[in-house]
Amino acid sequence: MATDAATEAYDDLTERYERLTNIGDAAGILSWDQEVMMPEGGTPARAGQLSALSAVSHDLLTDEEVGEALDALEAGDLSGDEAAVVREVKRQYDRATKVPTELVEEISKTTSEALPIWKEARSENDFSKFAPVIEDLIDLKREYAHHIDPDRPVYEVLFEDYEPYLGLDTAERILDRLREELVPLIDDVRESDVELATPFSGTFDADTQEALSRDALDTLGYDWDRGRLDVAPHPFSMGTPFDARVTTRYDEEDMLGALTSTIHEFGHATYTLGLPDDEYGTPLGENRNLTVHESQSRLWENHVARSQPFWSHFVPTVKDRFSGLDGVTPRAAYEAANTVHEDNLIRVEADELTYHMHIVLRFEIERELIEGDFDVAEIPRVWNDKMDEYLGVRPDTDAEGCLQDIHWSHGSFGYFPTYSLGSVLSAQLYASADSAIDDLDGAIESGNFDPLHDWLTENVHRHGKRYTTPDLIEEATGKPFSADDFLDYATTKYGALYER
Amino acid sequence: MATDAATEAYDDLTERYERLTNIGDAAGILSWDQEVMMPEGGTPARAGQLSALSAVSHDLLTDEEVGEALDALEAGDLSGDEAAVVREVKRQYDRATKVPTELVEEISKTTSEALPIWKEARSENDFSKFAPVIEDLIDLKREYAHHIDPDRPVYEVLFEDYEPYLGLDTAERILDRLREELVPLIDDVRESDVELATPFSGTFDADTQEALSRDALDTLGYDWDRGRLDVAPHPFSMGTPFDARVTTRYDEEDMLGALTSTIHEFGHATYTLGLPDDEYGTPLGENRNLTVHESQSRLWENHVARSQPFWSHFVPTVKDRFSGLDGVTPRAAYEAANTVHEDNLIRVEADELTYHMHIVLRFEIERELIEGDFDVAEIPRVWNDKMDEYLGVRPDTDAEGCLQDIHWSHGSFGYFPTYSLGSVLSAQLYASADSAIDDLDGAIESGNFDPLHDWLTENVHRHGKRYTTPDLIEEATGKPFSADDFLDYATTKYGALYER
Repeated sequence: MATDAATEAYDDLTERYERLTNIGDAAGILSWDQEVMMPEGGTPARAGQLSALSAVSHDLLTDEEVGEALDALEAGDLSGDEAAVVREVKRQYDRATKVPTELVEEISKTTSEALPIWKEARSENDFSKFAPVIEDLIDLKREYAHHIDPDRPVYEVLFEDYEPYLGLDTAERILDRLREELVPLIDDVRESDVELATPFSGTFDADTQEALSRDALDTLGYDWDRGRLDVAPHPFSMGTPFDARVTTRYDEEDMLGALTSTIHEFGHATYTLGLPDDEYGTPLGENRNLTVHESQSRLWENHVARSQPFWSHFVPTVKDRFSGLDGVTPRAAYEAANTVHEDNLIRVEADELTYHMHIVLRFEIERELIEGDFDVAEIPRVWNDKMDEYLGVRPDTDAEGCLQDIHWSHGSFGYFPTYSLGSVLSAQLYASADSAIDDLDGAIESGNFDPLHDWLTENVHRHGKRYTTPDLIEEATGKPFSADDFLDYATTKYGALYER
Repeated sequence: MATDAATEAYDDLTERYERLTNIGDAAGILSWDQEVMMPEGGTPARAGQLSALSAVSHDLLTDEEVGEALDALEAGDLSGDEAAVVREVKRQYDRATKVPTELVEEISKTTSEALPIWKEARSENDFSKFAPVIEDLIDLKREYAHHIDPDRPVYEVLFEDYEPYLGLDTAERILDRLREELVPLIDDVRESDVELATPFSGTFDADTQEALSRDALDTLGYDWDRGRLDVAPHPFSMGTPFDARVTTRYDEEDMLGALTSTIHEFGHATYTLGLPDDEYGTPLGENRNLTVHESQSRLWENHVARSQPFWSHFVPTVKDRFSGLDGVTPRAAYEAANTVHEDNLIRVEADELTYHMHIVLRFEIERELIEGDFDVAEIPRVWNDKMDEYLGVRPDTDAEGCLQDIHWSHGSFGYFPTYSLGSVLSAQLYASADSAIDDLDGAIESGNFDPLHDWLTENVHRHGKRYTTPDLIEEATGKPFSADDFLDYATTKYGALYER
């Protein structure tokens, strides 16, 4: 940096940002505790604690001295890393200063109240209970987006809270292409006479499933000195490069579901653990938002744990844990892990193909809702019609339909598209890793996941927020973000499985 | 309140204090997590998170607007409760504004680093590794006390961080009296020919011990909707009226030790759970510092769980959990729970008599250290000499001697006396409860702990910080704080046990 003043401004900025990071990560622990450990009675105090941390963070971020430091630095000479730090802090500062504190607090309060209402509505299968809350949240989020940029469509602005750099146009282009190319592929699969193997029917006790999830994490190389595995009703991963935890849930009728969930969250955790710990507290030590995060979870869930080489390696472990599976072949396990089911109602249980139709549906609904194209009361009908259109099934209940996801109760409109974008990106990254690594399939089949970890750390994790999302993708894969690799992969894999 | 301005100042003050409470309780969860759940690798990030919360709290508390609100209120007309709130916030504000932020941060950093060094020194049984850290911490704490009040002895000022209102002179008076009267009583016990029963020798597996600890908490009336039981290497209790958690540890050779530890921490938790939840976020919803807190843990540990009526009720439960105890009588269990052991080296394993000599020893050592009467390097020798003098035993190792407690690694000089003060107070409170409650022994023998809970909530818990410590004691027991009840109790109980 050119001047002492610039150095001072930069140090001031990074010191403030480190405190913000620490407070944000403290809130992460509180949320983990709330989902995993907290007794029921703790809710009122926990809401107060989280809201205090959020208010303190907002105050720290919007301090005018942050703005002054940013102004001083933007005018000056910065190295590439410094410029990246300034770009990322400025982006957050600009968003935070534009939104009035009262609105932030009202959104936080409304979402806190929304969660139990959503839970009740879902358990009573009564969307009408949840509808007024969605209406309130949509109003608040419209107001929020308007403060950030009154000249752009609300949904576009909201989407950038979750994926700041790819742009909604890219999301639309990718999702449109998925819809166009996957619908006929899914139709072919449905019409296929092939019956895939079902080696894992029956009941699998939860404790042994937990042991198997731990085996899977051992196998894939989870660092237990920097993590834990626990149960949560809605599995998630949370943490820092020093402590990135995995949660999962066990369904005694669905052993593969728990395993898949564990490995998905493991993928998130490996990203967090692969971030450069010497940059902890700066944007360079932070994940590159949701698209890239989801690319890591989906890469391990789909490209690794739904592959033939993985099951060649892992079937013996499953047999060690559960009796009665002597005849199960790796091929049968592979087929079971990739079956496209008929009663495909629940997003988190979907296969790699139909998953995207669940997302397309949510994306279309939430965008139209935000734009005021239809009323909240219409959500169940629109949802069910689209399920019929895209997946050929119609939910009998709202609990299995439009009440299945937690996201809207968080006020997270614009979040869903990052799931598909992340999955698509995982295919692009995996194709690059596969080209770069000598016999990746062979390594996985022999239980050696180091080359893949190393490639991902080197090309994705270690950069933190150094690059914008499109630049990171180009740096890692040598080409712009596209659905090509995913569609190639999906067409080949499912074509072979279902003898298309 | 007299004026709108005063009302506004009061509202401003309590709003700020609520945020401080929330942030402090968030830090409490982070500490609980660190001790109970966090993987080893998480330490660096956790230290940063806790230090950020502590810095933010310090900034919020020392904001000049807090001072202005306090000034405005002190001049005005306040109700009793309002005056108590102002008194307590002002006390904290005065202390916090006198100490420079840099010193607070240095103390926090040094204690963070001290903990692993203490652990290492203890596991390697090498006091010389820990000595430089104690020296640094003593220097820092001297400086800290000097900022708060340069005209008073350092130790007196430090003591008031843990017990703000009783005064070091009271602590000295009580401890002197304990030393004078307990040493001859302990001598008599040692010389007695009585051999108390040892019904719980052998090995008790940890899982069943955990089940028994849960039985004990059920029996005593722990509210599981607002708590949990977990394992921690150094048991503690932590929380809010909405979520007050208990930790314990299991030693397979010492079943009574774990049970006692569980019940001790339960006592702390009942205090927290008995605080008025509608005052949460104000000093009226907070515990009255360490003496009163310890009185609650010691009351349940000693006056309840080391009593004959308790064992009459609880022995059948122990027999249900562990086989081979058919012949154990309540009397034998009572004797086992009250045995004065010869090899009395560890404070937390001590009986009710010798416990205080462990405290007297620490009190004398830390006060003389702080006053510069001897060098840190001399601690092991001084410790061992005093053990010999007061308890007739000499530790073979520092791990069993001056390295056994965590407190000095926290920089907590002045904390230990509150343990004895709390125990002494528990006797005074229990004597009052026993007078007020019709047949308390009978209630306990029949497993009915409600009258005792009710008396404690009514006379102690519900007041939070409404009264100063001496006033609270007078309100609850009708007389000033003294060692009379404890010495009566101890003399009678141990005289009978050992046929003095």
